[in-house]
Amino acid sequence: MRRHLADVSTPSRLASPGEGLGMDELALAARNHGMPLEAMRHDVTPPGLHYVLTHYDIPHVPSETDWRLTVSGRVRRALNLSLERLRTHTAVTTRVTMECAGNGRAFLSPRPVSQPWLVEAVGTAEWTGVPLRVLLDEAGIASDAVDVVFTGADHGVERGVEQDYQRSLPLDVATGREPEVLVAYAMNGAPLPPQHGSPLRLVVPGWYGMAQVKWLRDITVADAPFNGFQQSVAYRIRETPEEAGTPVTRIAPRALLIPPGFPDFMSRTRVVSPGTVTLEGRAWSGGAPVTSVEVSTDNGVSWHTADLEPDHGHRWAWRRWSHIWSAAPGDHVLSARAHDEAGNTQPLEQPWNLGGFANNLVQQVPVICPDPAPTGRA
Amino acid sequence: MRRHLADVSTPSRLASPGEGLGMDELALAARNHGMPLEAMRHDVTPPGLHYVLTHYDIPHVPSETDWRLTVSGRVRRALNLSLERLRTHTAVTTRVTMECAGNGRAFLSPRPVSQPWLVEAVGTAEWTGVPLRVLLDEAGIASDAVDVVFTGADHGVERGVEQDYQRSLPLDVATGREPEVLVAYAMNGAPLPPQHGSPLRLVVPGWYGMAQVKWLRDITVADAPFNGFQQSVAYRIRETPEEAGTPVTRIAPRALLIPPGFPDFMSRTRVVSPGTVTLEGRAWSGGAPVTSVEVSTDNGVSWHTADLEPDHGHRWAWRRWSHIWSAAPGDHVLSARAHDEAGNTQPLEQPWNLGGFANNLVQQVPVICPDPAPTGRA
Repeated sequence: MRRHLADVSTPSRLASPGEGLGMDELALAARNHGMPLEAMRHDVTPPGLHYVLTHYDIPHVPSETDWRLTVSGRVRRALNLSLERLRTHTAVTTRVTMECAGNGRAFLSPRPVSQPWLVEAVGTAEWTGVPLRVLLDEAGIASDAVDVVFTGADHGVERGVEQDYQRSLPLDVATGREPEVLVAYAMNGAPLPPQHGSPLRLVVPGWYGMAQVKWLRDITVADAPFNGFQQSVAYRIRETPEEAGTPVTRIAPRALLIPPGFPDFMSRTRVVSPGTVTLEGRAWSGGAPVTSVEVSTDNGVSWHTADLEPDHGHRWAWRRWSHIWSAAPGDHVLSARAHDEAGNTQPLEQPWNLGGFANNLVQQVPVICPDPAPTGRA
Repeated sequence: MRRHLADVSTPSRLASPGEGLGMDELALAARNHGMPLEAMRHDVTPPGLHYVLTHYDIPHVPSETDWRLTVSGRVRRALNLSLERLRTHTAVTTRVTMECAGNGRAFLSPRPVSQPWLVEAVGTAEWTGVPLRVLLDEAGIASDAVDVVFTGADHGVERGVEQDYQRSLPLDVATGREPEVLVAYAMNGAPLPPQHGSPLRLVVPGWYGMAQVKWLRDITVADAPFNGFQQSVAYRIRETPEEAGTPVTRIAPRALLIPPGFPDFMSRTRVVSPGTVTLEGRAWSGGAPVTSVEVSTDNGVSWHTADLEPDHGHRWAWRRWSHIWSAAPGDHVLSARAHDEAGNTQPLEQPWNLGGFANNLVQQVPVICPDPAPTGRA
């Protein structure tokens, strides 16, 4: 039998009711990783705890010195930039909360079979680099330009299509200041780690992770909308395969709790002692600043306004919130819900779509609060 | 209904035939993470790519300055050591390949339901600290001592037992030089990251991960064998729950390939062009030095001796190997197999046990090599 590229890809599919995760989903979960939620204690996520999603392989980059970023297409002057050259520009550092567009996917029913995220696909880092608009200015954008296409060095097959990872931004986003897009060469003050795009990546504050092209090697200014696989086929909000759908762009609001107390190893159920418990967590939204966070300790029946830390001036980073809870013996389900300035909030019913994108369904944290004196079962 | 600690734990169990992974296994897979196999290109695993397993939560350590390590029990002089004090001892740095005892568990049939590792639960780091025997010498071991017990700050429930994570080493291992056990405060020249035990952990070169107690806060010398949960209940090789079993100790030999070519996103199947392909990977064994590696490109039917890099003097770290393969169009399954000086090697049939420990079954990497001119299906 002759073998072709299309043979390596299975069609996209939904899991059957009650179908457990398959070895293909596990293979992705073992490679990629979320941020353990207790890491939300840190304003900036410590190295190694920030979520990572790699579509294909982490590319082999033997030498940063040899890396070149090209800027071409509808520009007056094509650029061919070394890292040394990029570092001669004034550096900008931005604190950004980044989240995978597929975060929450594994909770959906039916479950789209792909990277099976629960809610941990998030992290906050300080990214340092050159504003993209500075590089585009230097190249000189032609008057007929409409889209800017970014190409990474990661190479693979997806649904039968062999590709380098590519995404685009509309010209107004690429050259805008809210957010200001960065071509970043440092994360938390150190060179990018291999899994975060070493030596160069795009950072688009407020947008989901698919826009943040890693191992960035080319920027092409185009006079027509880009219709590559990751733009037109993947990362669309649609309910049926026939729909064109709408593109996945900015991060929907989300609040998450640091699960209180301590866990059971296998069930991850939390144990909390009766009495006063400070619940805390983080909240973010890519569309507009977070204005309030509500907390429920009775599985969403009643909601209480949490204390939100004062505006810290990092528009694109999560904000800390807290709420005092008086825990009584019994079973509880804890939740938090973010609201943003544009009036967006989180749903209590799953916002289902075929790709499992932007599922910001309210988190549920089951907690057992044991009796103070466990002398036997009632 | 009154609630008790035991209510949070489900009994240990085996998955039914064909049962997919459950949400409990996924919750562990989302928190913990393996090392993407392409990271075997690096002699020392870059930060964030080394595997991580946390039994409970990563403990909150507000200040390293306040951290104390106590050494007590059957000693002449109890110690209470700050990090500053530990750093006054001569520092030792050892390169160590560490592997989770549960690596390979998710391939077992039936599958023990726990952290569902494939083969990625491994990594290599340079650990810096004080030899444990130096601290035990300073404390003065009593003549009736037999076991040394290590307590971490991570706290949780496991099968109904509330516990701080605790493990022990026999006195001869704790004070030995092959391996030399370290109380480590640095990883790859930097302070330990939170998930790797900040500020202090045990490093037992050649042993599986369960021995490498993180967030180390107490060392107790005991005059009787320790029989805590992680020593007597978990981490035993047994086929039935009734058996006492044998303890999990040193790392069994394993060789892994860096999957060649490029992957399909979902199936992770590899695509390799016809022609000469350099296969490479790493091999290690905790029991004795690796002496040879064999490679098969026909699903284990025939085996070829790989080129093993010369002894680099890092006894406890993996060794690089390579093999030239002439890839012909068609389907292939690639494997590698390590042999060590003690005559141990890897099985071709699963070495099954109830906990899913030490499964060093030979890796299988399916590869599709397409026809050079894909003009249609035959």
